[in-house]
Amino acid sequence: MATQRLSSTIEHSIDFYTQHSPFGANASFTLGRIGKGGGFGLDLGRPADQDIFLAYGRRGEDPRAMPFFEGHAESLEVFAMAEEIPDPTKDAFYKDWHVFCEAEIRRDLGWATDTWQAGDLTFRLFTPFGEVADPDAAEAEQTRLAVLPAILAEIELDNSRSGKPAWVFFGLATKDGTGVRRLSQTTGGRILGAAGETRFGLAALPDGGRVQEVQPWFIDEMMRSGKPEVHGLSKQGGLLLHVGARKKATFTLALGFFRDGTITSGIAAQYYYNRFYSSLEDVLQTALAHADERKALAAKRDRELRTGGLNAPRQFLLAHATRGYLCCSQLLMAAGKPLWVVNEGEYQMINTFDLTVDHVHFELRFWPWVVRNVLDLLVDRYAYHDETQDLRHGRKSHPGGISFTHDMGVCNQFAPPQRSSYEIPQRTGGFSFMTHEQLVNWVLTAALYAVTQDDREWLAARQGTFRETFESLRNRDHHAAEKRNGVMGYDSMSCGRTGQEITTYDSLDASLGQARNNLYLAVKTWAAYVALEKVFTALDDKRPAKSAAAMAKLSARTISGQFDRREKFIPAVFGENVDSRIIPAVEGLVFPYLLGDLDAVSPTGRFGPLIKALKAHMRTVLQPGVCIDARSGGWKISSTSTNTWPCKIALCQFVVRHVLKLRFGAREAKWDSVHAQWQQVGCADWAFTDQVRSTDGRDLGSRYNPRSVTSVLWLLEE
Amino acid sequence: MATQRLSSTIEHSIDFYTQHSPFGANASFTLGRIGKGGGFGLDLGRPADQDIFLAYGRRGEDPRAMPFFEGHAESLEVFAMAEEIPDPTKDAFYKDWHVFCEAEIRRDLGWATDTWQAGDLTFRLFTPFGEVADPDAAEAEQTRLAVLPAILAEIELDNSRSGKPAWVFFGLATKDGTGVRRLSQTTGGRILGAAGETRFGLAALPDGGRVQEVQPWFIDEMMRSGKPEVHGLSKQGGLLLHVGARKKATFTLALGFFRDGTITSGIAAQYYYNRFYSSLEDVLQTALAHADERKALAAKRDRELRTGGLNAPRQFLLAHATRGYLCCSQLLMAAGKPLWVVNEGEYQMINTFDLTVDHVHFELRFWPWVVRNVLDLLVDRYAYHDETQDLRHGRKSHPGGISFTHDMGVCNQFAPPQRSSYEIPQRTGGFSFMTHEQLVNWVLTAALYAVTQDDREWLAARQGTFRETFESLRNRDHHAAEKRNGVMGYDSMSCGRTGQEITTYDSLDASLGQARNNLYLAVKTWAAYVALEKVFTALDDKRPAKSAAAMAKLSARTISGQFDRREKFIPAVFGENVDSRIIPAVEGLVFPYLLGDLDAVSPTGRFGPLIKALKAHMRTVLQPGVCIDARSGGWKISSTSTNTWPCKIALCQFVVRHVLKLRFGAREAKWDSVHAQWQQVGCADWAFTDQVRSTDGRDLGSRYNPRSVTSVLWLLEE
Repeated sequence: MATQRLSSTIEHSIDFYTQHSPFGANASFTLGRIGKGGGFGLDLGRPADQDIFLAYGRRGEDPRAMPFFEGHAESLEVFAMAEEIPDPTKDAFYKDWHVFCEAEIRRDLGWATDTWQAGDLTFRLFTPFGEVADPDAAEAEQTRLAVLPAILAEIELDNSRSGKPAWVFFGLATKDGTGVRRLSQTTGGRILGAAGETRFGLAALPDGGRVQEVQPWFIDEMMRSGKPEVHGLSKQGGLLLHVGARKKATFTLALGFFRDGTITSGIAAQYYYNRFYSSLEDVLQTALAHADERKALAAKRDRELRTGGLNAPRQFLLAHATRGYLCCSQLLMAAGKPLWVVNEGEYQMINTFDLTVDHVHFELRFWPWVVRNVLDLLVDRYAYHDETQDLRHGRKSHPGGISFTHDMGVCNQFAPPQRSSYEIPQRTGGFSFMTHEQLVNWVLTAALYAVTQDDREWLAARQGTFRETFESLRNRDHHAAEKRNGVMGYDSMSCGRTGQEITTYDSLDASLGQARNNLYLAVKTWAAYVALEKVFTALDDKRPAKSAAAMAKLSARTISGQFDRREKFIPAVFGENVDSRIIPAVEGLVFPYLLGDLDAVSPTGRFGPLIKALKAHMRTVLQPGVCIDARSGGWKISSTSTNTWPCKIALCQFVVRHVLKLRFGAREAKWDSVHAQWQQVGCADWAFTDQVRSTDGRDLGSRYNPRSVTSVLWLLEE
Repeated sequence: MATQRLSSTIEHSIDFYTQHSPFGANASFTLGRIGKGGGFGLDLGRPADQDIFLAYGRRGEDPRAMPFFEGHAESLEVFAMAEEIPDPTKDAFYKDWHVFCEAEIRRDLGWATDTWQAGDLTFRLFTPFGEVADPDAAEAEQTRLAVLPAILAEIELDNSRSGKPAWVFFGLATKDGTGVRRLSQTTGGRILGAAGETRFGLAALPDGGRVQEVQPWFIDEMMRSGKPEVHGLSKQGGLLLHVGARKKATFTLALGFFRDGTITSGIAAQYYYNRFYSSLEDVLQTALAHADERKALAAKRDRELRTGGLNAPRQFLLAHATRGYLCCSQLLMAAGKPLWVVNEGEYQMINTFDLTVDHVHFELRFWPWVVRNVLDLLVDRYAYHDETQDLRHGRKSHPGGISFTHDMGVCNQFAPPQRSSYEIPQRTGGFSFMTHEQLVNWVLTAALYAVTQDDREWLAARQGTFRETFESLRNRDHHAAEKRNGVMGYDSMSCGRTGQEITTYDSLDASLGQARNNLYLAVKTWAAYVALEKVFTALDDKRPAKSAAAMAKLSARTISGQFDRREKFIPAVFGENVDSRIIPAVEGLVFPYLLGDLDAVSPTGRFGPLIKALKAHMRTVLQPGVCIDARSGGWKISSTSTNTWPCKIALCQFVVRHVLKLRFGAREAKWDSVHAQWQQVGCADWAFTDQVRSTDGRDLGSRYNPRSVTSVLWLLEE
């Protein structure tokens, strides 16, 4: 898919950052913004700040380069003492280079490849990913390759039209003081390349002399001569690749990451890949030895996406979102056992649970055991028990029950048991508790895992937790059983005496931000009761199954009872004078659907009135000036906010189109195109960005975010 | 010593960066520039970029703060989604704070304490250091404390004149994405404080509730209320210390560092302290448990410097230089054995050998075994053998011999055997080979170690190496024994066919930069022959002893023969039309003197003519317009360069005053004062800086440098 051709009417771009990451290494080789660097980042919530050089030259010709560098050579400044060194300003270097501009470049972003073509040069980054088996159950060799913290690249130079030999320099320059070294020195020449201390590097096989290792002081000079330059103090290093006159050649490179030692606090853990790799050199050699099969895996993913029935903007959105997720993925090892983490992009929170409930769609497809891993840690360490309070009646206190923390810590720092890094008391907006939201999320995630993976053993082991969650859910409705309506009525006492619970939509207004009586959360609560009925039935736990079914019915009745027959919508908050219109009203429908309960989501099924009301609601809100932004034409998740969230748009698009079977004709493709443009233009600097201004697609937060892999659901659409 | 009062005529300052570092951790808690941050840096060749908060408040009073922060709160920007967060610009925060200005602060820099006093607040940083025994021979417990990667601090608030309770906030804010956490969480409350992930932190004991742990979002708000604030997402954390009305209280804090895993490449090593400490918490708890004895050690060093007979500027220079050295010191462990490194400040080169030969004066006083450690690694891994070439006769090649690399790598990256990171062929200036210089350095360093430490076993084990160096030295003079004159005549073939050797003075002109026929190197070569005679005599190796004595005589005769009787100086380079006048002519005299050979450096001894010539030379050059800068009044090491090197000034001052017994009356104190001012004003941003512009004291390179501990020699002066 050529991203330039996403649409004939909406301006798209190839000029955006993309993260290229192996599985579980919390690392990324980032590039894509024209005229900016990027490079190798480890445990960062943002791109690294290196220059990446990819340029080719021939004797007597100006070098031609991909635009992945800023061109300020820091390492020269340090040694400015050597008088003959030229003025190290941006202008002094590369000023005669032809750096390709956007119009000269063709970029194709597949699910697992990112290809840049300009002039005679083709550069392809491979980020292979595929099914990963539970390391506790898999063959060690299988896991060893799955957790390899490296990606691959191919550089092709088509020199067939030139009568002169050509050379390509592929390399990096650090700007933060990180040393650069040559990999031949520690591998006896088995691989060649440049490393940044012990932590990252690029490498290739010697290839019979076609590949030379360089560490140049003056890249410019080297590019003109084609002769390797080496100086151990230079913070610029890489490879010089030679292509004969009238030849075309392709070179394979490995780009690797490595960290050992203790990575985290709270729970002291190291990277799981430390079990198999003792150094960066080890990682890079393994990547090169297995390059063919890794590339084949990437090609398989590309094919899958290309033939998956998605239009071009949707293919782009899923491919881009997948990279956001992979960058944040982190497989650790604590006390010898796997410990799964997805970090929350720029915020770096550990396993934010309201993100997990969205990642689960992707994870259950490729590495389902990670879902169980997170659910177990939630129960074992991050579950807590509270009391509740009735805000409408003088904050009278009532029983509560189990729930789960918002996250497990931040920045590689695991929070203590029963604590998140995010939640604090006495707040009514951002940073308040998400007690009800996370309770519902546990039920839905756990049910989805257990049912879709048919993990009966785990289900049985967690029966007590399911029962606790069921009780806790009902207590948060009303303490008197007969007064329950299936919707959250009480706030957690954790919020303190002046606070109230919020939902995952913490940066929006009350339409989505307030938890109590919230339509979005009410439908998810209904879905949780539907899921609990399914779980208890599977456990042959008859009384709670029956009781959950009754609660689901109650819930559905309450929600559909809020339907405004004149305006044909359900207000965002029930009975609290908030009549915003919201798209995530239908978010919860995805769960019964994926649990295989098609009756539950059918307008003619046992919850028919609810489903019909929601269908009517969606027809009402998906109109310009309501939840279709009148300016941009994209989806806004709330009619009263311009802060819109791509991860939820993707999820709700799936529900609207595939579960509710609503059709909007040509408008659908236009929406997709707008959403793709937001990422490519407004959020170009921030890789996948999950808070966007609906008027113009500008980023509003949640940068470098993993969450939008909800778009993997599109592959299920007919 | 109050640095403000260094001199009544020369303007001094307290506004300069100082590194506060434990032994061997390559780490520093840096502060001192007014209005700039600093904080905890690990494996950096520069200060870290954190804000350090030290402020006190009382109800209804504006907070008063030390000026160790810039005030831009990055962590707030990240979560700008919470609408009520104020504009995170510099001005929005702390605008009503009274931040002490330079005139309000008294700063006293001792050898191992740095005290800041302003308003009611006194802040004292302790960097205890003292004799460290060889870990291979010492008790484990003794080594455990010696290698503790932590320093201490004291905060005293004198609230005795106020009727209101007061509080002090001491904390940090990261700006590079590093997470902050509370130390009570991982220590069960045994210590309180803030950590930056697993790598650094500040901590105190709970002290019966007088100490509270905080992680505030808004420091400003907290400072006004005196109430602890905590939010796990804030990247600002620290301690709130409470002092009652009409009370005075002192709090002790530990500031610690921690890194585990593989730190280096080439030789894979970890920090030696990993043998004893498994986490940052472990480090901080140990530091607090041993606070009294560590403080006492610092006090002992302070006393030693205060009573050592040095004037105020000299006390400052030694104290400041010691910190530069300690910051760069790095005790590693490879294959279970200690591996000693001193990194070269901003350049981060590993064990640059022409620096080692200067550090040795400090090291032999406190931890002599590290000198042996470096000498052994030089022999075992970084020795090489070359041929030589005669540049005056068509670059004809001749035998060479053993020498040693310039350094052992850069940025925690050990170079391969026989290679430095610095040296490259075909150069005539910076980055050329220092073959002769490093050969002489090995002889002098090895002799000094073996003789002063009386390590006969080591001497015997290295007898072969001493012989090899002697042969190599002579070969570099002339291939025909009868044509030798005791001075370097041939350049190493390593330089290639267009290069020539340089000396340690690589950024100066030929007066000090060129190695062949260089006066500075000639005197050091003479010293090497004197040292070799001593070594071979100790080894009862009679023939080489006699032969070395003869070479020393030859050398002395050649040098003194260059004395210009009319102008009363010796030219910087012999017979090559370079008549610059240089101070380091006398550098080499330090070695015979420290080897106890007083006859060798006496005007009436066996080298009388040489010593007399050098005395006359120094009287000539230490004049304004020659090697006393006419503008600043400070020493310039070469009459033809304004780039002057404090480490060599200190060394040569020692030789001039103590070895040659030259006196310059009141001018001596003025010189010291100028040299102190250079560091405090011109080099304020760069901690100890070892390349300075002699006209105005501006830094010219070699920032954050370890080398100027040569000033420890001043303590030997009568």
